[in-house]
Amino acid sequence: MAHNSFGYRLVLTTFGESHGAIIGGILDGVPAGIELDTAAIQRQLDRRRPGSSKHVSPRKETDLVRILSGLFEGRTTGMPIGFQIENKDAKSGDYDYLKEAFRPGHADYTYYKKYGHRDYRGGGRSSARETANWVVAGAIARQMIPQVEIHAFTSTIGDITINIPYQETDFSKIDDSPVRCPHPETSAKMEALLDDISRQGDSIGGKITCVVRGVPPGWGEPVFNKLQAQLAKGIFSIPAVKAFEYGTGFCAASMKGSEHNDVLLPGGTTRTNMAGGILGGISNGMDIYFRVGFKPVSTIKKEQESIDIHGNKIILKNRGRHDPCVVPRAVPVVEAVTALVFADFYLQSK
Amino acid sequence: MAHNSFGYRLVLTTFGESHGAIIGGILDGVPAGIELDTAAIQRQLDRRRPGSSKHVSPRKETDLVRILSGLFEGRTTGMPIGFQIENKDAKSGDYDYLKEAFRPGHADYTYYKKYGHRDYRGGGRSSARETANWVVAGAIARQMIPQVEIHAFTSTIGDITINIPYQETDFSKIDDSPVRCPHPETSAKMEALLDDISRQGDSIGGKITCVVRGVPPGWGEPVFNKLQAQLAKGIFSIPAVKAFEYGTGFCAASMKGSEHNDVLLPGGTTRTNMAGGILGGISNGMDIYFRVGFKPVSTIKKEQESIDIHGNKIILKNRGRHDPCVVPRAVPVVEAVTALVFADFYLQSK
Amino acid sequence: MAHNSFGYRLVLTTFGESHGAIIGGILDGVPAGIELDTAAIQRQLDRRRPGSSKHVSPRKETDLVRILSGLFEGRTTGMPIGFQIENKDAKSGDYDYLKEAFRPGHADYTYYKKYGHRDYRGGGRSSARETANWVVAGAIARQMIPQVEIHAFTSTIGDITINIPYQETDFSKIDDSPVRCPHPETSAKMEALLDDISRQGDSIGGKITCVVRGVPPGWGEPVFNKLQAQLAKGIFSIPAVKAFEYGTGFCAASMKGSEHNDVLLPGGTTRTNMAGGILGGISNGMDIYFRVGFKPVSTIKKEQESIDIHGNKIILKNRGRHDPCVVPRAVPVVEAVTALVFADFYLQSK
Amino acid sequence: MAHNSFGYRLVLTTFGESHGAIIGGILDGVPAGIELDTAAIQRQLDRRRPGSSKHVSPRKETDLVRILSGLFEGRTTGMPIGFQIENKDAKSGDYDYLKEAFRPGHADYTYYKKYGHRDYRGGGRSSARETANWVVAGAIARQMIPQVEIHAFTSTIGDITINIPYQETDFSKIDDSPVRCPHPETSAKMEALLDDISRQGDSIGGKITCVVRGVPPGWGEPVFNKLQAQLAKGIFSIPAVKAFEYGTGFCAASMKGSEHNDVLLPGGTTRTNMAGGILGGISNGMDIYFRVGFKPVSTIKKEQESIDIHGNKIILKNRGRHDPCVVPRAVPVVEAVTALVFADFYLQSK
Repeated sequence: MAHNSFGYRLVLTTFGESHGAIIGGILDGVPAGIELDTAAIQRQLDRRRPGSSKHVSPRKETDLVRILSGLFEGRTTGMPIGFQIENKDAKSGDYDYLKEAFRPGHADYTYYKKYGHRDYRGGGRSSARETANWVVAGAIARQMIPQVEIHAFTSTIGDITINIPYQETDFSKIDDSPVRCPHPETSAKMEALLDDISRQGDSIGGKITCVVRGVPPGWGEPVFNKLQAQLAKGIFSIPAVKAFEYGTGFCAASMKGSEHNDVLLPGGTTRTNMAGGILGGISNGMDIYFRVGFKPVSTIKKEQESIDIHGNKIILKNRGRHDPCVVPRAVPVVEAVTALVFADFYLQSK
Repeated sequence: MAHNSFGYRLVLTTFGESHGAIIGGILDGVPAGIELDTAAIQRQLDRRRPGSSKHVSPRKETDLVRILSGLFEGRTTGMPIGFQIENKDAKSGDYDYLKEAFRPGHADYTYYKKYGHRDYRGGGRSSARETANWVVAGAIARQMIPQVEIHAFTSTIGDITINIPYQETDFSKIDDSPVRCPHPETSAKMEALLDDISRQGDSIGGKITCVVRGVPPGWGEPVFNKLQAQLAKGIFSIPAVKAFEYGTGFCAASMKGSEHNDVLLPGGTTRTNMAGGILGGISNGMDIYFRVGFKPVSTIKKEQESIDIHGNKIILKNRGRHDPCVVPRAVPVVEAVTALVFADFYLQSK
Repeated sequence: MAHNSFGYRLVLTTFGESHGAIIGGILDGVPAGIELDTAAIQRQLDRRRPGSSKHVSPRKETDLVRILSGLFEGRTTGMPIGFQIENKDAKSGDYDYLKEAFRPGHADYTYYKKYGHRDYRGGGRSSARETANWVVAGAIARQMIPQVEIHAFTSTIGDITINIPYQETDFSKIDDSPVRCPHPETSAKMEALLDDISRQGDSIGGKITCVVRGVPPGWGEPVFNKLQAQLAKGIFSIPAVKAFEYGTGFCAASMKGSEHNDVLLPGGTTRTNMAGGILGGISNGMDIYFRVGFKPVSTIKKEQESIDIHGNKIILKNRGRHDPCVVPRAVPVVEAVTALVFADFYLQSK
Repeated sequence: MAHNSFGYRLVLTTFGESHGAIIGGILDGVPAGIELDTAAIQRQLDRRRPGSSKHVSPRKETDLVRILSGLFEGRTTGMPIGFQIENKDAKSGDYDYLKEAFRPGHADYTYYKKYGHRDYRGGGRSSARETANWVVAGAIARQMIPQVEIHAFTSTIGDITINIPYQETDFSKIDDSPVRCPHPETSAKMEALLDDISRQGDSIGGKITCVVRGVPPGWGEPVFNKLQAQLAKGIFSIPAVKAFEYGTGFCAASMKGSEHNDVLLPGGTTRTNMAGGILGGISNGMDIYFRVGFKPVSTIKKEQESIDIHGNKIILKNRGRHDPCVVPRAVPVVEAVTALVFADFYLQSK
C-alpha cells in the first residue's frame, strides 16, 4: 500500500515536490549484470525537459540525473538503484499569490480536503515535475528489455490529427518535430495551432499514440494483472490523462465479431491486429498499440473565477510559466511508463 | 504479486475455471460489525446470470452464492469472507472439439504459449465466468459504502447510442430493459439490432456508462494510486474491455483549458464537471462518471479460419452457447468492480 | 495488506473459522505443469489430524481436502489452486458457556477489543484449526521443490530434551513416535510426561527442531526479505509460538568470532555450520536448521480465574477437548510453513 | 515484491551501499500534519554512529541526515519523506585486497553465487551501514506514536548478563553506559570483557532486550500479520541477528499452562505477563518485551582460512576497522525497527 510505488517485480518508488530542493526515486528489481548506459538515461530526461522548443514552458532546468547506488564498475549489481535530480530553477516566491487560492482544474482543492494543509508551491507533489523521476526509471527499464521497441508520438492536438496508420509512420522523425508528430505536414499545422492558442492565453488537449514492438507471446498475467490493466494503471498515473484505449479501443463498440476476430495464421501471427497484441491479458507476439487522451493544461493566462480556502470568490490570473499543450512533453513520459510496465512483465514472465 | 488478487485494504482473491466444479473467492478487509444483506448479494448475482432474457446465452445456472466465513449472527466479524458458487451446468463434453484449436479473439493461443498446456473447456480461467465471483464481492463492497450510489447502464450497442446526458437518465429503468438501457426507445432499437446480429450468427460490441454519486472529497491517493488509475486497472480486468475514459475523456483532446477548467464555487462544488469528479487522483465531491468500450463477443456461430496447436490451418464452427453482445450482462460486473475500488479507497481514506 | 495472505510469488490466502461449515484457501503462483500428488496432500493433513494418538485431542474429523481448481488432467495449470476442508465435528453448543468469558492465554480479549464483537466458538479464526489450511498449501509447495527435504521433529517437551545432534537423528523414525520425537528413549520419556500432565489437567510447552536440506546457494533476498526474516514471519504466524532461532541462535551470544565464523572450503562448503545455512539473508548451500519454542496449550482442565466481557470476575472450567501439548501436532505445521517459504524463494530465485 | 521495502501502510524503501557516495530512503505513509522534530532524528542517528566510544569502530562519519521532501513549513504533508546521508569516510582503496576473497561469516559468497558479481567494498549492501537509513526512518516513526515508549538495552555480552528484571531497570541510564547496559556494575564487566576481546583480535556476541510501553489493546492483525510475526521479520532483517523471542520465549517450552496463562483482572490487565503483551497476534495493553540474539562480528583481526572466487585456499587477515561487538550500536537499530513496526500497526488499527 505504498501509494508512491509502482510495479510488482520492478518497483519504482519516488519522492519530491515541484519546488523542493531535490526529487528522486529508487528503482528496485533491476537484475544484476546489465551494462547501464547512463548517457541514454540523461537523453530521455533531456527529451522531457522544458525549454526545448518555443511550444514548451521556458523553465530552465539542467535536469541532471545522478545515480547513487546499484551500479558497480558500470554494471548493475541487483541492488536498488537510487537516483536524484536537483530542482535548480524552483523559486517559491513565484507562488505566494496562490497560497490561499484553489486553482480550477488543479489538485489544490482535493489535496486540501484530504490532507488539511498543502504545499502550494507549483502543485507540490501533484505537479508533472514528478514525471521526471519516471523518465529516469523508464530509461533504465528500457535497457532491461533491449529487444522491445517503444515509440510514442503526438497523434492529435485540438482538432488536428495525424491521418495515416501507425504502420506508415516514420518513427525516426518523431523528435525532429517540435510537437513530436512524425508527419511533417501535420506537425506544421499543430505548431500553428499552438501559436494561436498561446496568443489567446489558453491551452489545448491532445492525444498520444504508442506502439510497442518485439514483445514475445506470453507476457502479462490472467485475471487481475492483465497486461492492459497494469498498463492502463500506469498511464492513468500521468497527470492530465483522461482516456486510454488499446487495439481497436472504443471503435470496437460498433464492430461485429466476424470483423474484430483476428484470424490466426500458421506461425501464430494474425492476419489483422484488431486485438492490439493482447488476448486474455497476455501478449500474443503482434504489435501492441494504444492511444492516450490528455486534457488541456489547467494553468492558463486568461483570468478565471475560483474560490480561496475560506470559501470566498476570487479572480485568478496566472503569473507563472506554462505550456499551451502538455502532449509533446508527455511523449517521453508515456514511453517511460510503458517501459516500466513491460520490463516488469518481462521479469514476471521468467 | 498475487495475480489473482485485487485491491489494497479490501482485497479480493479468486479461483475457479469456467468448467470446474466450483468457483469462489475470499474477500479480505471487510470491517467488523456490518449487518450483511445476503439476499442483496444474490440479487446482484441474479442480474449477471445468463438466461435472463432472449438476448443472453441460454446456459442455465442457478448461480447460488454460499457465504462460508466471516459472518457471525448476521454481522461481519472482520475476518475474511470466503464464498463459493457451484458450476451446475458445466458439461465438459461440449468442448472436446476445441481440444487442439486456437479460437480467434480468445486467449487460447496466449495461454498455451505462456503455460505450455491449458484447460480448453470454455476458456478455463479466461472465461467471463470468473466475473460471477466479482459480482459477489462487489455486492458485499457496496454494503460497506451505503452512502455511495453506483449506476451502470448500456449506452451503446453497435451504432445505436443513447443520446441524452446521464443527468436526464432514469436509473430506476435500467433493469426494465432487456439490454439494460434506461431509455426505452433506444433500448428497443438495441434489441432489434441484437435480434438481427443473432440471426447473422455474429456478435457486436458496445459501451457502458457508469455514474458514481455520493463520494465525498478526499478519496484516492496521489501519484501511483490515483482513483482513476486503480479504477482503470479494475475495469480493464473485465474480459472484452478495450477502452476506458472518465469525465470528458477523449473529447478533452480537442478542448481548450478555458472550456475544460471547472470553475470552483463557494462550498467547493464546481459550475461544470468536465473533470468527472476527480482531480489529481482524488475525488472532489462531484459526480464521478466514466465510459467503458467492449469488443464484440469472440465466440460466433459463423465459420472462422484459424490454426490448431500443431500449426495447421483449421475451420472452426462454434457449437456452444454464446451471447450476441456482452454488454448487458457486463453492467453488473462494471458496477461490482467499481464498488470494490471505491470501498477500498473508502478504507484507505480513514 | 491482505492480512490473511502469506508470501510473495507463492501466495496463500485463507478463510474460515474453527466452527464454521468450511475452511479453505487459495494458493496462487504454483507453476503450470506439475503432476500433483493429491494423496500426498491428504497424508500431510492426516499427520496434523487430532485423534491420531492418546496424546492428542479426541476431536474426530475426517479432514478431507478437496481441490477445486488449478488442476487439469492431473497437472497444475498455473491458475490458482482453490481448496476446502469441511468442519465435520464442530458443535457450537460446546461453547455457549464461553459466550461472555475471556479465557486466559487465548485471543478472546484482544479480538473483542479490536473488533467489538467476536465469534466465541472455539476461538473462531484464532484457532489452530486454521493451520489445516496451511498444511494443505505446504503439501502442494513441497511438490514444487522436490529437491528440498524438510524434516521437523519434537526436540523438547517440558524438561525432556533430545540430546543428540540432528545429524545423528534418523528422520524416518519421526512418525513412529506418538510425540514425533525420533529418539525412541526420549520419546518414551516425553510420553510419560504427557500422561502425567494430562492426569494433572494441565498442559506443557515444548520445542520443534527443523532441518532443511537441498537448498542451493542463492535463495533469499538481501535487506528486507532475508530468508530467515520471512521464515521467522511464517513461523511466528503459528499459534503458540514464542521463540525462533536459526543456526547457533541464542548460543551465538556467548561465542567469539573466531569460533563462530565457518571456514569456507574449496567447493564452497564450510567446515562447520554455525551460520545455519544462511549468510546475509541468502542460502549458502549448507543445511538450514532452526528451533521453534511453543508455549503450553492455553486450554486446561484446571479451574482458572478470569473476567467476562462486563469486567466481572469469573471462574473458568474448560469443558471442551484439548491436547496436553501442541508440539506433536505442530510438527507438520512447521514443515508446511517452511515449505511455503522455500517454494516462494525458489520462484523468486529464478 | 520490493525486497528493499518494509511495511504495509508505513513503508520504508532504501538504497545505498557501504562505500557508495550516498545512502538514503523514502518513508511513505506518514500522515499529514505532524510537526517533525528533525533534531530528534539526528540524535538517534548520532546514537548509532561509530566512534562514540572506544568499544566501537573508529570510522569517522558525521552522518548528517538531510530530509528532502514531505515537509512544508515544519509539518509533514502526507507526501513521502525522502532522506539521504552522505558516506563521508568511505575509502574504497581499503578493500582492494578483498576483491577476490570470500570472508567467513560474511555474505560475500552468497551474493556472488546469487548475482554473479558483487560490490566487494565493505560488504556493499549487506553491510550494517544500511541500518543508518533505518534509524532515520525509525526516528520519524516514533514521532507518529508519541504515546509509545521504546527502550532497548544490552542485556548480554558473551557470558556477562544483566541479572535484574527489566521492571527494575532504569532506562534513563542506558546511554550513560558505553555498552548501553543500564546496570552500572554489569556495564563495567562488559567493558572489561570487550577490552579483553579486542586485545585478542577477536569479537563476541550478545543479546538486546527491548521493552515497548503504551501500546493500547488492539494493534496487530490475526493469522498472517500478527504483531510478533511482523516484528520478528523486521528484527531478523538486522544483520547478525540469530534469535528472537518475546514474552516467556524459549522458557515457555518447560512451563505448564497453569503457570503460563496470565489471569485476566477487572479492567483488562493481567496478573502476570508471560504473554509479553500479545495474544493471538494482537496487543492486549500490557508491556510488550522481547530479546534478540546477535552473533559475534564476523570481521576479526585474527588470521582466518578461506577461499577466493577461483576456489583456491587463502589466508585472510583483516586490515579494516571493526567493532569487537555489534550489540551496543545495534541498540538504536532495534529501537528503530520496533518503531517502524508499531507505527505501521498504529496506522492499520485506525
